[in-house]
Amino acid sequence: MFESCAHQIAQTGRELGALGWMPATSGNFSMRLDAEHAAVTISGRDKTNLCIDDIMTVDLQGQPIDTNASPSAETPLHVQIYRRFPHAGAVLHTHSRNQTVAGRMFGARGTIRFTGWELLKAISGYTTHESTLDLPVFANTQDMPALVRRIDAWLDAGKPLHGYLIKDHGIYTWGRDMREARRHLEAFDFLLGCELDLLHLMGAKT
Amino acid sequence: MFESCAHQIAQTGRELGALGWMPATSGNFSMRLDAEHAAVTISGRDKTNLCIDDIMTVDLQGQPIDTNASPSAETPLHVQIYRRFPHAGAVLHTHSRNQTVAGRMFGARGTIRFTGWELLKAISGYTTHESTLDLPVFANTQDMPALVRRIDAWLDAGKPLHGYLIKDHGIYTWGRDMREARRHLEAFDFLLGCELDLLHLMGAKT
Amino acid sequence: MFESCAHQIAQTGRELGALGWMPATSGNFSMRLDAEHAAVTISGRDKTNLCIDDIMTVDLQGQPIDTNASPSAETPLHVQIYRRFPHAGAVLHTHSRNQTVAGRMFGARGTIRFTGWELLKAISGYTTHESTLDLPVFANTQDMPALVRRIDAWLDAGKPLHGYLIKDHGIYTWGRDMREARRHLEAFDFLLGCELDLLHLMGAKT
Amino acid sequence: MFESCAHQIAQTGRELGALGWMPATSGNFSMRLDAEHAAVTISGRDKTNLCIDDIMTVDLQGQPIDTNASPSAETPLHVQIYRRFPHAGAVLHTHSRNQTVAGRMFGARGTIRFTGWELLKAISGYTTHESTLDLPVFANTQDMPALVRRIDAWLDAGKPLHGYLIKDHGIYTWGRDMREARRHLEAFDFLLGCELDLLHLMGAKT
Repeated sequence: MFESCAHQIAQTGRELGALGWMPATSGNFSMRLDAEHAAVTISGRDKTNLCIDDIMTVDLQGQPIDTNASPSAETPLHVQIYRRFPHAGAVLHTHSRNQTVAGRMFGARGTIRFTGWELLKAISGYTTHESTLDLPVFANTQDMPALVRRIDAWLDAGKPLHGYLIKDHGIYTWGRDMREARRHLEAFDFLLGCELDLLHLMGAKT
Repeated sequence: MFESCAHQIAQTGRELGALGWMPATSGNFSMRLDAEHAAVTISGRDKTNLCIDDIMTVDLQGQPIDTNASPSAETPLHVQIYRRFPHAGAVLHTHSRNQTVAGRMFGARGTIRFTGWELLKAISGYTTHESTLDLPVFANTQDMPALVRRIDAWLDAGKPLHGYLIKDHGIYTWGRDMREARRHLEAFDFLLGCELDLLHLMGAKT
Repeated sequence: MFESCAHQIAQTGRELGALGWMPATSGNFSMRLDAEHAAVTISGRDKTNLCIDDIMTVDLQGQPIDTNASPSAETPLHVQIYRRFPHAGAVLHTHSRNQTVAGRMFGARGTIRFTGWELLKAISGYTTHESTLDLPVFANTQDMPALVRRIDAWLDAGKPLHGYLIKDHGIYTWGRDMREARRHLEAFDFLLGCELDLLHLMGAKT
Repeated sequence: MFESCAHQIAQTGRELGALGWMPATSGNFSMRLDAEHAAVTISGRDKTNLCIDDIMTVDLQGQPIDTNASPSAETPLHVQIYRRFPHAGAVLHTHSRNQTVAGRMFGARGTIRFTGWELLKAISGYTTHESTLDLPVFANTQDMPALVRRIDAWLDAGKPLHGYLIKDHGIYTWGRDMREARRHLEAFDFLLGCELDLLHLMGAKT
């Protein structure tokens, strides 16, 4: 199980790295191993060129299991998703230019609203472009527990959550398996790019 | 015949996928097999990494032949082209950022008018840049029969049609064979990109 | 000699094709074979995937030698360069988005003036960024002899010429050998991109 | 040591070249060999396709050692870094569109101020996005000693320096080893791209 997950994480890293979505060793990835554990990238590694030794096991409180390595600093955000979404099997965090600039531009609003795009149907549960999806933008902080609390507060309020931006920091999204997480990530990045193009063309109005 | 078409469809998917034109499993492709049948991609598959098992046969009413698989949801649009254009041999639907944003920006006008571009000569039948080509933008709907009727109405009015955008959803174009369909697709995407650049530079005026 | 030139042309096509600079079978390339002949791409071939059979010999009036194939329609522009510049060994015509949009935006002015860019030093004969280079933009026409006369008139007036745009149609540039022609092409495309970025940022002012 | 450094320089050239960051043979790279010597690219070579013969040894005054080859014209800037920063092990100079346009747009200000971006943490010594980093933009000149004096003056004033732009000419950055230099370069290019996007979206205000 660990080897299969590590292989999928490394493959995803190579493919997303080729798109320039994890500049300067940013980004981190994980997959659920079982009800209590996840495989996650080790801190500081180049996510575009991962091997099995760059991936470690943590429990769902983010504590390392059977290793002296340190997991990615944002591991608390990964394990929060596995705790809150029992069906989540993979979590992806990337840091593309679309994601970073969109977070800066739309951060003051608190959410980015997608509406009318056919690609909304790539998000599980959406069956028509005549839908509205709000992607929240959380303020950035180096205080991981504070960030976890902000996301818990959103979820505790019963609001739907398919992914989120951290302002100036990139996106988190997830899925039942790596394939679905990847589809969600591609859809969100594409839609953020379209919204930025509209801002350019319409004149910034946020 | 089926194997040759499936091979061409898969190869096209890899090459267009590398350009990012089918994000999040969007897009679909087909080729005519004979006067009554076409090969088309199966619904939900990753179009950037297709194998022969991701492609199936339908008749020109879009009904599956000798398979339990479901064809791409937009199959009615593919077979409409084969019914209306007896010489059409391949149909391509992609969902690039140029195509998606252009559809949103120009959708209210109903058509995008290309004029003066040398690359118009890449569209079969155009022999000079001193030509005008109107690419229609049809409103999006999940009701495929309604979309088919809109396109039939355009054709029944005797208007030329070399491709069309569906608003917020991407482009459809075709050709006698995969090579011509691909040339048309590359030309339209390029020209949409140029028109968007002009909008940026001139100030949005649509 | 022919085989070596054909190999260089095909290699250049693959590399520039990967950049998307010859969409929809646009673009054409040539190399001088001797004082009276050049190797040039055959009309209509996909310039991103050339083999030796896609390349033919013409004399410097553009007439085919020992073949029934037709050379690229713009062959008169290639052979003009070999006639007017005795040291020219390779001519490249591409059709990138930068080149096409810049031609449209700056066409009314007649020239694009580059000044202050370090990359001017990539153009042979330029030794400092404190230089000015005027890249002419000629109006497009399907009448090749008329286009040849426009370029001859520029040269007959004694104006320097390192390359030129044809409006809505792309760039022509050349060099002593393929390496220099490629360096000139990369420099011009890069500088056109920078000038377009400045137009975007400053507000279109042409 | 020389072979290992040359290998790392060539590999870096291939990877950065694929991003289009050294158009038209621009850019140059070096690595420290010991307290008194560095390996540096030879002038005029295509930095996207280097082999060991394209790399030579200089002393920290920039004089060639055991070779008749000429080092990159900007070698004085490389060896200045090794003299002033005893822990610097690799210096990278590239010439991307982000770097070139940002230099032009922000040059009048003298510095580009990055603030709030998570990717600041990719610069060694920065531990929070709540930091401010000033990237200086030095005026371009073909007079290398004059440029060296401008940079010495900045350092002699005790101002921190992690990299700098030369106006219309690209970036210089460095690190303890090639891996850190590369991380700094990717972070700066990404942040310059984000700042240019904000300028576009906010309206140019520099």
